[in-house]
Amino acid sequence: MASQILILNPNSSDSTTEAVDRSLDILRGNGHVLTCMTLKSGPIGIETQAHIESVVQPTAQLFSDTPADAYVIACFSDPGLSLARETVRAPVVGIAESSFMLAIGLGYRFGIVAMSERSIPRHVRNVRSLGLENRLAGDWPINVGAEHMDGAGVVDKVLRVGRRLRDDDGADVVILGCAGMGRYRAEIENILGIPVIDPTQAAVARVLGLLSLGYRKAA
Amino acid sequence: MASQILILNPNSSDSTTEAVDRSLDILRGNGHVLTCMTLKSGPIGIETQAHIESVVQPTAQLFSDTPADAYVIACFSDPGLSLARETVRAPVVGIAESSFMLAIGLGYRFGIVAMSERSIPRHVRNVRSLGLENRLAGDWPINVGAEHMDGAGVVDKVLRVGRRLRDDDGADVVILGCAGMGRYRAEIENILGIPVIDPTQAAVARVLGLLSLGYRKAA
Amino acid sequence: MASQILILNPNSSDSTTEAVDRSLDILRGNGHVLTCMTLKSGPIGIETQAHIESVVQPTAQLFSDTPADAYVIACFSDPGLSLARETVRAPVVGIAESSFMLAIGLGYRFGIVAMSERSIPRHVRNVRSLGLENRLAGDWPINVGAEHMDGAGVVDKVLRVGRRLRDDDGADVVILGCAGMGRYRAEIENILGIPVIDPTQAAVARVLGLLSLGYRKAA
Amino acid sequence: MASQILILNPNSSDSTTEAVDRSLDILRGNGHVLTCMTLKSGPIGIETQAHIESVVQPTAQLFSDTPADAYVIACFSDPGLSLARETVRAPVVGIAESSFMLAIGLGYRFGIVAMSERSIPRHVRNVRSLGLENRLAGDWPINVGAEHMDGAGVVDKVLRVGRRLRDDDGADVVILGCAGMGRYRAEIENILGIPVIDPTQAAVARVLGLLSLGYRKAA
Amino acid sequence: MASQILILNPNSSDSTTEAVDRSLDILRGNGHVLTCMTLKSGPIGIETQAHIESVVQPTAQLFSDTPADAYVIACFSDPGLSLARETVRAPVVGIAESSFMLAIGLGYRFGIVAMSERSIPRHVRNVRSLGLENRLAGDWPINVGAEHMDGAGVVDKVLRVGRRLRDDDGADVVILGCAGMGRYRAEIENILGIPVIDPTQAAVARVLGLLSLGYRKAA
Amino acid sequence: MASQILILNPNSSDSTTEAVDRSLDILRGNGHVLTCMTLKSGPIGIETQAHIESVVQPTAQLFSDTPADAYVIACFSDPGLSLARETVRAPVVGIAESSFMLAIGLGYRFGIVAMSERSIPRHVRNVRSLGLENRLAGDWPINVGAEHMDGAGVVDKVLRVGRRLRDDDGADVVILGCAGMGRYRAEIENILGIPVIDPTQAAVARVLGLLSLGYRKAA
Repeated sequence: MASQILILNPNSSDSTTEAVDRSLDILRGNGHVLTCMTLKSGPIGIETQAHIESVVQPTAQLFSDTPADAYVIACFSDPGLSLARETVRAPVVGIAESSFMLAIGLGYRFGIVAMSERSIPRHVRNVRSLGLENRLAGDWPINVGAEHMDGAGVVDKVLRVGRRLRDDDGADVVILGCAGMGRYRAEIENILGIPVIDPTQAAVARVLGLLSLGYRKAA
Repeated sequence: MASQILILNPNSSDSTTEAVDRSLDILRGNGHVLTCMTLKSGPIGIETQAHIESVVQPTAQLFSDTPADAYVIACFSDPGLSLARETVRAPVVGIAESSFMLAIGLGYRFGIVAMSERSIPRHVRNVRSLGLENRLAGDWPINVGAEHMDGAGVVDKVLRVGRRLRDDDGADVVILGCAGMGRYRAEIENILGIPVIDPTQAAVARVLGLLSLGYRKAA
Repeated sequence: MASQILILNPNSSDSTTEAVDRSLDILRGNGHVLTCMTLKSGPIGIETQAHIESVVQPTAQLFSDTPADAYVIACFSDPGLSLARETVRAPVVGIAESSFMLAIGLGYRFGIVAMSERSIPRHVRNVRSLGLENRLAGDWPINVGAEHMDGAGVVDKVLRVGRRLRDDDGADVVILGCAGMGRYRAEIENILGIPVIDPTQAAVARVLGLLSLGYRKAA
Repeated sequence: MASQILILNPNSSDSTTEAVDRSLDILRGNGHVLTCMTLKSGPIGIETQAHIESVVQPTAQLFSDTPADAYVIACFSDPGLSLARETVRAPVVGIAESSFMLAIGLGYRFGIVAMSERSIPRHVRNVRSLGLENRLAGDWPINVGAEHMDGAGVVDKVLRVGRRLRDDDGADVVILGCAGMGRYRAEIENILGIPVIDPTQAAVARVLGLLSLGYRKAA
Repeated sequence: MASQILILNPNSSDSTTEAVDRSLDILRGNGHVLTCMTLKSGPIGIETQAHIESVVQPTAQLFSDTPADAYVIACFSDPGLSLARETVRAPVVGIAESSFMLAIGLGYRFGIVAMSERSIPRHVRNVRSLGLENRLAGDWPINVGAEHMDGAGVVDKVLRVGRRLRDDDGADVVILGCAGMGRYRAEIENILGIPVIDPTQAAVARVLGLLSLGYRKAA
Repeated sequence: MASQILILNPNSSDSTTEAVDRSLDILRGNGHVLTCMTLKSGPIGIETQAHIESVVQPTAQLFSDTPADAYVIACFSDPGLSLARETVRAPVVGIAESSFMLAIGLGYRFGIVAMSERSIPRHVRNVRSLGLENRLAGDWPINVGAEHMDGAGVVDKVLRVGRRLRDDDGADVVILGCAGMGRYRAEIENILGIPVIDPTQAAVARVLGLLSLGYRKAA
């Protein structure tokens, strides 16, 4: 029987959820079902710590109410990961941590394209808490609000930061520090000439691996 | 005018709050007021991630409603630290992080006496996220529930773990991984013969330092 | 069309290849074909550096001669990884490196059950070269020759080392440092009560993820 | 009874001692007495290793001859720390180490404004010996002699290095690598917009904390 | 009786071997004989992994056939080090690893002048596998093919990278990432004003030390 | 002309100097002269920080008064290294740092046999300041006073600690944490079966290498 994977966009933007959903098409069709949901009660974008905390319990509650074989929290702040893991008896993964774990198998030093300046300390804490700081080449912001992620200018800004990470910081892998930029991955990858990671894709691929191997918990 | 420091015990146990309060007497009387409060809505003890998350927003709310010059979250899981920091315009510190920062100035390798097995991964994440893992000698549990922290047996169990940390792991400082054990610090310190840290004392001393230096934010 | 994954056992033991093959059944049936091959020209077991080097070029040659969408080198010394990567235009992964990358997402500190004393420096070099030494809890040998991997005593020896890693070194994930022990994974996992990694399974799951995400190179 | 804290400027410049003394006013008045002294026999400035060594024994001697509850060595090379600690039965702290310990609680990566090129290896050794190198964002010199620390140009030079640390190296805390620049802290902090640390203030605050907690030794 | 040291240039270029030979003159004349040989079967230059692997077994074979008291593999990729160590009962050292070990005793952070972009990941792996990544300031390529190592332009390119390493990355020691550039060391050292390491010289000096101390194996 | 190497025993014990002198015989006879001297004004043994500091300036003075091509400070606390380096225009090395640098080329993790408990924090600081803590397997004391270094029991005590380092901590190299134990090295090495380092031998070999390579400063 097909595995059910629930990917939750913890902000309330259906257009982000749709963007996430489309970017996962490359992972569909192998005996599992990927279902993307929007956390209706979530904030319009997750930029502050208050936004993060506001989705922690609703995320765990929604997971608890929605049986699935595995769960992905599709926000680069990995909100509510610990609680969700404790709540459901199935693997739960965050997209940021998953992107770091993928990155160390694609190159030697990864760089992060941050959405905003203030998210960088959160990234640093996350990378450090995984013991991976020595693999981090750099982390610089494009300073674009969640509401302007569709504009043509976004790719240009990502490329500007991507080149800095590659040329000045020596990164050979670049992580897009955001849930919904998978649609731009191919274009950015072609231009930069090094692997680019969409964290949501990374997380779904990871969780499919965990399921196929029979692990019932992620950490 | 005297600085007001609010120390919040985020569990609902008034006896723990009283124990914390008494252990802070050594820090009183220098032009500041230390007020210990119980989070009435908190769980009886903070052992699970659900307990942790349940106090995050109430803690920030209580801080927001209770003007003070600085805030201490008196639980070794440092629950709600990031949100509280974003919410109030005053320094907020956690007791676990503060104990690690104090420890590196008292010895070369610190050990942690954990209350339970399952809290250890939380400690590891916290220590790693501060970049201090190379200072951590060991972390072993006494496996005592919060409700049995008063029994005479507790000190013996702490001493057993403390000796293991000192003799097998090479720790020269020991941290009591719990908010309310300050009352036992002197006794344990005398027997072990190395500095012992009560995290709540560490946090209050730190925050008094930050205030006196004029810093308006901790990180 | 189905992806073709070639898993090469670089020693000449067909019984090891068969054991590897069976342990991969849990990963079959999702639109890809897993083919296990024996390197006929390989040594009977890979224990020395001479054994390792003797398979480097034959492995790359065999990969070059055998079109596939991805390749796995099924030996815990990760022999010939760099050459194979340079030779074929498809992802190539080693089982040791893949097991470390999986381990950091299953727990906080991983331990390695080494087959022999002399393989430990190779593990250390490998873990260090990936920047993951701070995640390594311990690495201790069972000292069993490849030719005795079938005996009933093997599981007991692995358990003895596994308990040491878990109880003395604080490991919460254990890696079986060998290609063909997947058959024992469930039993060992049940007894130890923490996740156990079969490196070949880890590598195949990783490579399936890389393929599904469209990455053409691993590193 | 009031605690007596002795802050020793180990160079012979009374004007530096006065500058240090004034910068400590924010820490006065809470039941302790802060006394700044000049080491008469010290060199006019501490720039070379010979200068450092020349004050080691006089510092310990002076501390031994001058009863106090705690001692601060107010030179960013932390000269004579180990000997002083062995000599007196009271906490002794250095200002450089204290500034690093404070910095890790104010931000994620700290930068150092060095007085001269040749002091940088000393800083690196000190940061490394505390296990904090992964928190160090950068360390660049202003190359101003101790005798020109009063000129208006000093602040401009510090700001130039401070901006480099903040913008190029990603520092979110800046340490003034000198004993007597506390008078400029507020101005520099206002312009840079991130916390700035005067090491002498950091050290005095730390030692007051140690005393209030009853620790009789620092390390 | 005089010790015999065999230094093998594993590429087939006699002119490189001659350049290496001359650069070792400063190490001659103290009761040992330094013999430089060319691996006739080697590639014209060692730039790819295929080049590296092609010399692994011939190197061990040649060492096995050529009795000596110690062996040096004179290629900055350290090809075949592990096999050679297992094959002969005498110390074998690589020039890259030896240059790192020398560098940490000459300064605080070393930089590497890489011959080409694609060699950098190999350097990173090597530095990391020795646990020395925290000593590495930077690693940037001059992108010159082995066949153009004689041109006057080479020194200029090395100097350009050397200044970047010194001024932007804070390196106080520079390693020439190539076997045959010892002839330029003095000139580059004079201009840069910091120690410059020729890896082959570093390796020969190291092996002479090991022999004089009576160690029969390097690692 | 022969190089002159001055090895200074900074304690006043001529018998220690003689022991050091004899242990250097294996390094004699290659066109350099090794002269061991006793610092007459030194303490009988160097056990406390006061002992260390008391020899710092006399050591630099003696070096300054005694022309040589290189200098070794033969005490495992590396006393006065920085001052001596600043004072003379020739390489000066410490025996502890030199032993660590040698150890990383002889094995994967080194252990230290400390003379006394209280020297361990000094070792940790030294190892950390060189960025080598991840190579340190363990450091345990034999607790023998300098005056009893000749007794037959010393070797037994060293072996007891050496076995603990090898078997429990995974060390594959052992450093004798003392200047004058070279005479026991062969015996201990034979029994333990892994390389054993006499720090003074390590330092002299290192300095001979530096001289032969033409470096005028160590760091």
